[in-house]
Amino acid sequence: MSKCVVVDTTKSPWARLRPVPVNTVKLRDSFWMKRIEVLRKVTIPTQYEKLEETGRIENFRKVARGDKDIIWRIADDSDVYKWVEAAAFTLAYEYDPSIERMLEEVVEAISSAQDEDGYLFTYYAYDRGSRWSDLMRMHELYCAGHLFQAAIAYYRATGRDKLLNTAIRLADHIADVFGPDRRSGAPGHPEIEMALVEMYRQTGREKYLELAEFFLDQRGKGLLGGDIVLIDHKPFRELDSMVGHAVRAIYLCCGATDIYLETGDESLYSTLERLWRSMMKRMYITGGVGSRYHGEAFGEDYELPNVRAYAETCAAVANVMWNWRMLMATGEARFTDVIETVIYNGALSGISLDGKRYFYVNPLADRGGHRREEWFSCACCPPNIARLLASLPGYFYSTNSEGIWIHFYTSSTSSIELNGRMIGLIQETRYPWEGRVKLEVNPEKSDMFSLFIRIPEWCEEVKIIVEGKEFKRRILPGTYLKIEKDWDYGDTVEVFMSIKPMLMISHPHVLGNTDRVAIRRGPIVYCLEHVDNPGFDVWNIIVPPDVQLREDFRPELLNGVVMVRGRAFVIDSKVWKSKLYLPLRNMPLEFSEVEFRAIPYYAWANREPGPMIVWLRSLMPKIPPERTRACRLSS
Amino acid sequence: MSKCVVVDTTKSPWARLRPVPVNTVKLRDSFWMKRIEVLRKVTIPTQYEKLEETGRIENFRKVARGDKDIIWRIADDSDVYKWVEAAAFTLAYEYDPSIERMLEEVVEAISSAQDEDGYLFTYYAYDRGSRWSDLMRMHELYCAGHLFQAAIAYYRATGRDKLLNTAIRLADHIADVFGPDRRSGAPGHPEIEMALVEMYRQTGREKYLELAEFFLDQRGKGLLGGDIVLIDHKPFRELDSMVGHAVRAIYLCCGATDIYLETGDESLYSTLERLWRSMMKRMYITGGVGSRYHGEAFGEDYELPNVRAYAETCAAVANVMWNWRMLMATGEARFTDVIETVIYNGALSGISLDGKRYFYVNPLADRGGHRREEWFSCACCPPNIARLLASLPGYFYSTNSEGIWIHFYTSSTSSIELNGRMIGLIQETRYPWEGRVKLEVNPEKSDMFSLFIRIPEWCEEVKIIVEGKEFKRRILPGTYLKIEKDWDYGDTVEVFMSIKPMLMISHPHVLGNTDRVAIRRGPIVYCLEHVDNPGFDVWNIIVPPDVQLREDFRPELLNGVVMVRGRAFVIDSKVWKSKLYLPLRNMPLEFSEVEFRAIPYYAWANREPGPMIVWLRSLMPKIPPERTRACRLSS
Repeated sequence: MSKCVVVDTTKSPWARLRPVPVNTVKLRDSFWMKRIEVLRKVTIPTQYEKLEETGRIENFRKVARGDKDIIWRIADDSDVYKWVEAAAFTLAYEYDPSIERMLEEVVEAISSAQDEDGYLFTYYAYDRGSRWSDLMRMHELYCAGHLFQAAIAYYRATGRDKLLNTAIRLADHIADVFGPDRRSGAPGHPEIEMALVEMYRQTGREKYLELAEFFLDQRGKGLLGGDIVLIDHKPFRELDSMVGHAVRAIYLCCGATDIYLETGDESLYSTLERLWRSMMKRMYITGGVGSRYHGEAFGEDYELPNVRAYAETCAAVANVMWNWRMLMATGEARFTDVIETVIYNGALSGISLDGKRYFYVNPLADRGGHRREEWFSCACCPPNIARLLASLPGYFYSTNSEGIWIHFYTSSTSSIELNGRMIGLIQETRYPWEGRVKLEVNPEKSDMFSLFIRIPEWCEEVKIIVEGKEFKRRILPGTYLKIEKDWDYGDTVEVFMSIKPMLMISHPHVLGNTDRVAIRRGPIVYCLEHVDNPGFDVWNIIVPPDVQLREDFRPELLNGVVMVRGRAFVIDSKVWKSKLYLPLRNMPLEFSEVEFRAIPYYAWANREPGPMIVWLRSLMPKIPPERTRACRLSS
Repeated sequence: MSKCVVVDTTKSPWARLRPVPVNTVKLRDSFWMKRIEVLRKVTIPTQYEKLEETGRIENFRKVARGDKDIIWRIADDSDVYKWVEAAAFTLAYEYDPSIERMLEEVVEAISSAQDEDGYLFTYYAYDRGSRWSDLMRMHELYCAGHLFQAAIAYYRATGRDKLLNTAIRLADHIADVFGPDRRSGAPGHPEIEMALVEMYRQTGREKYLELAEFFLDQRGKGLLGGDIVLIDHKPFRELDSMVGHAVRAIYLCCGATDIYLETGDESLYSTLERLWRSMMKRMYITGGVGSRYHGEAFGEDYELPNVRAYAETCAAVANVMWNWRMLMATGEARFTDVIETVIYNGALSGISLDGKRYFYVNPLADRGGHRREEWFSCACCPPNIARLLASLPGYFYSTNSEGIWIHFYTSSTSSIELNGRMIGLIQETRYPWEGRVKLEVNPEKSDMFSLFIRIPEWCEEVKIIVEGKEFKRRILPGTYLKIEKDWDYGDTVEVFMSIKPMLMISHPHVLGNTDRVAIRRGPIVYCLEHVDNPGFDVWNIIVPPDVQLREDFRPELLNGVVMVRGRAFVIDSKVWKSKLYLPLRNMPLEFSEVEFRAIPYYAWANREPGPMIVWLRSLMPKIPPERTRACRLSS
């Protein structure tokens, strides 16, 4: 039985970092402990119920029984697989007999539905002739990939190989059908690429890695109609920007990164680097990506509408998955910064505080109509956010031969294997609400190694005290600070990050954010919600650029959050009546002065509905004459 | 032979205004004369060629021959019909033997494809069993409606009844199939409703009016899956906002208005009034509507993205058609204001100055990639803008028993029938570039009647001189000014409208236009295009709210336009490099001062590609302390 890690780069020749198992970290009273508890107690069981209610699990049993009354939806199998993956990580993190029972039932159902030749996809259970006939629209390979990931997580969590054997039989079947000398074909929805690489890591069978490369290289040949939404308009290595369906595009990048981690193919890495830089111009401040409803797709650079943000929860999850792989490949903190932004904002908004309602779409402004739902007919997002949260303890640390990499901060006790020895590591912190982190390092015996301490990119002031002595070297935000020493049991490192609310602005080509500011405090992006600001319409606020922001922790509010307050102006949009456009000289100029209250974006829409907004109108700083220069017109 | 009018409300009991035939008005050297000439000389012949090239006309001939090699596209027939309508109006306005020949050929082809029972839709020519089986997706009734409109225009233009008889046979066939005691069914794409009412007006057959009412009332019963995009989520009379596919929604409103004009059904009118007010919160400053790519649909109130504006050319055309019917019903100038905005901006942008390239989508900001195309696989827009322009001379005047209504200004000579007598009317003006209009009224003999002179809503200063004497009553913008007198041959009315460039602002809930201004001069909305402003990126401009705007007519530029110039600041977005978000305190504050040059929006993308923008960043006026009041928070 392997250890239950998220992406097993332990032996990947091109990986800079190695993972730690999800049960390495035991969260203590902290931001994440509450969420993971709700996940185990509410999310996993209620999703199981939904999967049963909607016939998704029963579909497998029906196939096993030969019952033809199947409810046909092309991605239903994958919802079950993602739930299995989430439940397996949950179980690996903390044993729970009820989850174990559910898992066994579901695994039994899945395995029983496999055809003799290894084929497994309930949609075509009785239609042998149609199998693999429409890779563009049918989600056979996508579902297969999710089965592989589920099977691996279940095996790593429990040591039981029933589902892994099912996965292997299906993978072998797919390898019999597709390949350079066999059938060509590109999956309409990428996913199988990264799953095949993980199957290779799990089983050592090189044909799975080769098949992943094969599928990657099938794109851009017109097998998917040359469709840009399906990322078929160009070969992968020729892509120069992140385009197409966001989840598909990022899953494809995950697969390509996984292939790079095993093969060291530089043409892949340079493509990934280019695409990542492109994505950085197409990402919301929340880490949400895929701004277009149309095609659930990436927009152009700076195309980031707020009300009509699509920013699918699945795309945020995918964003974490890809950046994690890039981090494993490089050890560069810019990827960790993205992960942190996403998990505290654009992904976490996808699930309610009570753990049983979900956003598919994550707007950054709303009039009050957008609410989380218990389930969707296309139910990809709920189990996807569940598997991200369930595996989250596996994201806090990595190791390499030099030492331990600390990616994220949370109160926790951990026991990390480093070069064959166990290192205890205790974090004490109220992060993300406060920036002080006390680390206690407890090696089995005195040991020389490095701690790589991540300094978040947003953190412009930081102080580090090692065993009572201030660390004197210059500390750069957006890097890992390496502290190499001979560690004794009980040694401490204290990290003091200045967490203050800051006003953020956007690149001027984000046209909808012109003269708007967003409040960010540490990794958390804030929003104004009507329920906290009943005296005015939060869309009508004008925040002075020199606003004094006050902050206080409210333990009773939204499971405990720091609320940010300040004074601002509001206009009265009602005076516009039915007018949509007015001459500037007739602009209504009546302002009220109000106190506003901001809450973390992830927590919005957990109370009464009402307007919400992240990007607040501000006042342009006056143009100082000395900063102005005359410019010749070239014609 | 009837007179060739656009919508024949002559006998409509609930119409306040009656139309004049398109050949009433002879345009003289003017804005519109040039466009109509290009239409006749370039647009009509090149569209004919495209319809032949793409097999759309040949499809009809193939059906007549029994040749089964038809190119199947569900709306192709309608493209031909709309071209016939455009060509018929063109011919009615000014005889042209080559257009007459083309028309005769096409009419012959269409008529020859009709089945014995009256059915006519090339897509199902050989598939009798599928006819009328899928009203949601198939465009049978939509194509039928366009045939009716084409046949009526052709008959009114030429007196030839061949196509009208074809239309009558098809209408009778449809009336045999559908109706209260026969088959139910709602057209997936409205159009037939207004066409059936016009068929009723043309033929006097009441069953066509009844059938139009029947189809309207079929909506909201779930026959179209209850789909909001197809406006099937509610019965028409219960709609409270403009939603769904914009062209479909507005065509439906056209049909409902036509039914109201004949029946006086108040529940229809109150719905139309409600929907019109809703649409006024969902319309671009250009008059474009339907802001969403997703479903080509109306967005929510104030959902008006600039780069991702959809604003289909067909929706702009539909907007003119509907407002025209509302104007006929009410005589209220608010509808004429919308028509004028659309025809000078959001519709006219749909066709190139050379008359042979088209926009399907009309963004209000672009980086230079959006260009007009010669044709589309779904080619609804080119013939739609053609039929609007071809029929435009029919929109300048209306009459009622009291007198003549002057809706639009353009140099022209007209001869208008009023209560059985002919009234000559000469307009001399350089409108829209200048606001002075000289009207010469030439009744056959001295005659007592009223002139209803439209004062545009944007016109805040106006002076009217009747026979050398200034009109003394208060003149309100957005109304028709009634001048009642005994008119003698050669009497003059001079209208002096102040046309100055103005900065316009948007309702604060148009989040993407916050602190942005648009330049409007008279009815013309302006934009900045890179080709006129090569020294800077027009997206980066900051226009001071007190900018002095200069204006001069450039006869050589874009067929002659008034260019608007001013001084403004620009920022350098390049200093942002790859950054997407920055702390406000790190905002780059380097500005250049430049002169900018703005051109009419309709004329953009006729020269070299480059960035374009309508809504220019401006500076918030400082909040004056005396306009501020403290506001108690209610909690």
